[in-house]
Amino acid sequence: MNPINILEKFKLFNDYWTPKKVGELNGQQLLLAKLKGTFIWHTHEQEDELFIIIKGCLKIEFRDKTVSLNEGEMCIIPKGVEHKPIADEEVWVMLFEPLSIKHTGNIESELTVKIFENI
Amino acid sequence: MNPINILEKFKLFNDYWTPKKVGELNGQQLLLAKLKGTFIWHTHEQEDELFIIIKGCLKIEFRDKTVSLNEGEMCIIPKGVEHKPIADEEVWVMLFEPLSIKHTGNIESELTVKIFENI
Repeated sequence: MNPINILEKFKLFNDYWTPKKVGELNGQQLLLAKLKGTFIWHTHEQEDELFIIIKGCLKIEFRDKTVSLNEGEMCIIPKGVEHKPIADEEVWVMLFEPLSIKHTGNIESELTVKIFENI
Repeated sequence: MNPINILEKFKLFNDYWTPKKVGELNGQQLLLAKLKGTFIWHTHEQEDELFIIIKGCLKIEFRDKTVSLNEGEMCIIPKGVEHKPIADEEVWVMLFEPLSIKHTGNIESELTVKIFENI
């Protein structure tokens, strides 16, 4: 029940596309990630995914459109919807998703993080 | 999957202690609330609760301590833990919690909102 300062947590890591866990509740997890570059197309078959942009601008490509998310904006990606995040510049993002999720979804790649590190 | 601007959503309402729903995912909901004054002591027997402070400073009293949460800070209150939020000045807060939750927990009062309005 201690306060967690979100921006201070972001200062604790610099790697991209490797979400860090800052909290768990109700079978869900709250993750922080720094993103830069282009991620892979992937789908979460069982999990909806929430992105909240803390810093920067994130583009998310869907098969039929591209969405731009700026600081202070959020987006829920329903399960089963294929998507590809793109960060032209560094982006800081907060993610809220079930504990069961893999951030590369149905795709196993060198980007797949097996266990999200706690910070 | 459209972007939602969180601060713009806060401009759509002015009532206190009546959370508004901005999204649903995985059986959870994302709520925004404006708080001012002192809430009641209550407990959520089955639900953990996440507070993220968007604006202002929120005190949360527990039976054994008081926590102060400032802008950009968050706190998870585990299920079963009695708590009382206090906002000396207006506070804007984002809440993540299961769809099943009542914001007054085990206490039925005039503050109890039956259904969280979508905004």
